Amino acid sequence: MLAEIITIGDEILIGQIVDTNSAWMARKLNAEGIRVKQVSSVSDNKEHILKALAEAAGRADIILITGGLGPTKDDITKLTLAEYFNVGLVLNNDALKNVENIFKKYNRPLLEVNHKQAEVPENCEIIQNNNGTAPGMWFNVDGKIYVSMPGVPFEMMYMMEDTVIPKLKTILKLPVILHKTILTVGEGESFLAEKIADIENDLPENIKLAYLPKMGQVRLRLSAYGDSETGLREKLEQFTARIVERVGHNVVAQEDIPLEKVILNFMAGKGLTLSVAESCTGGYVSHLITQHEGSSQVFFGGAVTYSYDLKENVLGVKNETLYQFGAVSRETATEMVEGALRQFKSDYAVAITGIAGPGGGTEDKPVGTVWIAVANANKTVVKKFTFGNKRIQNIERSAVAAFFMLITLLKES
Amino acid sequence: MLAEIITIGDEILIGQIVDTNSAWMARKLNAEGIRVKQVSSVSDNKEHILKALAEAAGRADIILITGGLGPTKDDITKLTLAEYFNVGLVLNNDALKNVENIFKKYNRPLLEVNHKQAEVPENCEIIQNNNGTAPGMWFNVDGKIYVSMPGVPFEMMYMMEDTVIPKLKTILKLPVILHKTILTVGEGESFLAEKIADIENDLPENIKLAYLPKMGQVRLRLSAYGDSETGLREKLEQFTARIVERVGHNVVAQEDIPLEKVILNFMAGKGLTLSVAESCTGGYVSHLITQHEGSSQVFFGGAVTYSYDLKENVLGVKNETLYQFGAVSRETATEMVEGALRQFKSDYAVAITGIAGPGGGTEDKPVGTVWIAVANANKTVVKKFTFGNKRIQNIERSAVAAFFMLITLLKES
Repeated sequence: MLAEIITIGDEILIGQIVDTNSAWMARKLNAEGIRVKQVSSVSDNKEHILKALAEAAGRADIILITGGLGPTKDDITKLTLAEYFNVGLVLNNDALKNVENIFKKYNRPLLEVNHKQAEVPENCEIIQNNNGTAPGMWFNVDGKIYVSMPGVPFEMMYMMEDTVIPKLKTILKLPVILHKTILTVGEGESFLAEKIADIENDLPENIKLAYLPKMGQVRLRLSAYGDSETGLREKLEQFTARIVERVGHNVVAQEDIPLEKVILNFMAGKGLTLSVAESCTGGYVSHLITQHEGSSQVFFGGAVTYSYDLKENVLGVKNETLYQFGAVSRETATEMVEGALRQFKSDYAVAITGIAGPGGGTEDKPVGTVWIAVANANKTVVKKFTFGNKRIQNIERSAVAAFFMLITLLKES
Repeated sequence: MLAEIITIGDEILIGQIVDTNSAWMARKLNAEGIRVKQVSSVSDNKEHILKALAEAAGRADIILITGGLGPTKDDITKLTLAEYFNVGLVLNNDALKNVENIFKKYNRPLLEVNHKQAEVPENCEIIQNNNGTAPGMWFNVDGKIYVSMPGVPFEMMYMMEDTVIPKLKTILKLPVILHKTILTVGEGESFLAEKIADIENDLPENIKLAYLPKMGQVRLRLSAYGDSETGLREKLEQFTARIVERVGHNVVAQEDIPLEKVILNFMAGKGLTLSVAESCTGGYVSHLITQHEGSSQVFFGGAVTYSYDLKENVLGVKNETLYQFGAVSRETATEMVEGALRQFKSDYAVAITGIAGPGGGTEDKPVGTVWIAVANANKTVVKKFTFGNKRIQNIERSAVAAFFMLITLLKES
């Protein structure tokens, strides 16, 4: 089964935004056995959109469209779809109710342009937008399915997960695809590939292995294809078990969840608590943790100690330590993590201090030098890392390294 | 002058990678007055690529192609281009020398597949690749320019900057395009549209206005097209000034930078310092600030006080306040922000406490209730917000609201 994605909006074509929607949608579709044939980004121009729709319908059976549904003049997707299907627009009461509720909630007057957002081509079913005013639209015409969704990522994502994917699954006869993800940290893609080469060679035709590397982590994704689930799950689990055993301690999870969620799940299960002391990561580690619901069960909080003063006053790092060894040192990292344990009274703590760059590097402490410490009441582990010269990547890699150190300490305790 | 971008490779279509190249290329092209008509991502499939090339050439004069130039079997761009132009492949000596040098540098034996990387369609000029083995290719056929480049971002970027853009500028007579971005916070797209409807109506044919909304912010982007800069910049500035005046205090910047960068620039310019006290945003505000280089000039750090204990011990919030009014209250937000000023000794502080959700809501304090405080030595401003029920969005919207309150306080001080 083939799909195409059309993204509408000048903001992609002038490079103002990066199209992250398409990759997300492609992953979701692939997980259900639907291949994406082409992704096309086109401008807010009627003729251009009409042409893109016709071309896509010539290649695929499912056409997913995002963008161009806002209330302003330059958003013309809806009118263009009506013209494409040669139908008129009608006011949809459910969509109108949704718009009215949103405006009521925020105590705003409903303008004429907002009212218009509830008008849709008469041959569509609307997809309720629980996160915004523009309804999604589902068309089933001449054996092809067209779905138009807003370009705002979270509005599109909820529609895809709540409505579009479930509906596609009930309408289409899709093959059975089972996925299994093994999350590994601390080893590169080619090293892992070499380590499990023989297992990969043993894989049957209908099980594929993909390496998905990202910032110090590699996800190994096994996908098994078949007509029924019988036998398929067992085979998948067998190969998963072989890979997990071979890769050893670099495996941190056997499900597709973020690294910090592995920690939250583990610690919540054991009733353990965590605090952090961040310098160069500047709040990023805390943010990764607290973006997950229920994190307050484990996470007490922490300090972002960018200045010397905060390191001393909030964490109790000694002034001599900072001046003798520097803020980026084994000694400071150690005092930071032990200060966090003491001040914040958590079972475990993480501390990170480094030079994110691009400024601040010296000959013996170049940009990318990061000291990370993890500790509990009985043990403190400190390590030095040397990352690259890109600020954002240094922040991200520091977080991954810190989480991996914490997982290792948690497992041995 | 119109261009199209074709990205070749299955990794985009299965959602393994996000296509960031296209946005970058589009920005570069736009800055030179070349509009991108369409971006198409197609698979490593000869027929599909041939069709995409023909379609693109039907719409545009410049076709930029990335990807599919690696040494492996599934990289077929070069053979497909030769077939498209109906020519053979020839060994290019400059390209071969480049490949040989790279292998010599890394002390690797040159394999047959690597040798093949120096073969190119006989009707192209090569573009030397200073960062990899695959040469770029420049074709000028029937008045259309085709450029094929590697998909590896930095290899493509160097080719674009060093060769492709300069060469396009010498060959083509390009129009002038000027952009101006007005960053607004705190008003919705439709409200803004209504507010400036008459100004928008006054815009001449050659100045376009786009609304780019994102999480409580709307960027208003004016693009002016012309044959020369004379008069164009003035006209653009006139309309910018009219819009800025009309929109009033919701305008926070007249350049295209992130909201927190507006604050950092302003505070750095005045030698002011900042600290934060975050509860429901859990480090996100700190992270947004510290992702920018040079933020340490302004930012001292702060506390992520998820627990009652940390609110008391780190920020000095009174125990009675927490128990009498709750952690999510005007009183707690006030004590948090004043505690941050006192403990962290910064000129300004921001405090955020709320219920990010999905759990933790009550009847009078539903999920999405957030109290935000900003303060300097003379003034504390506290406001209550009622966002929605999505955790990540509550975090993001809280950050935007806090930054807007801080900008407002900074401006009036």
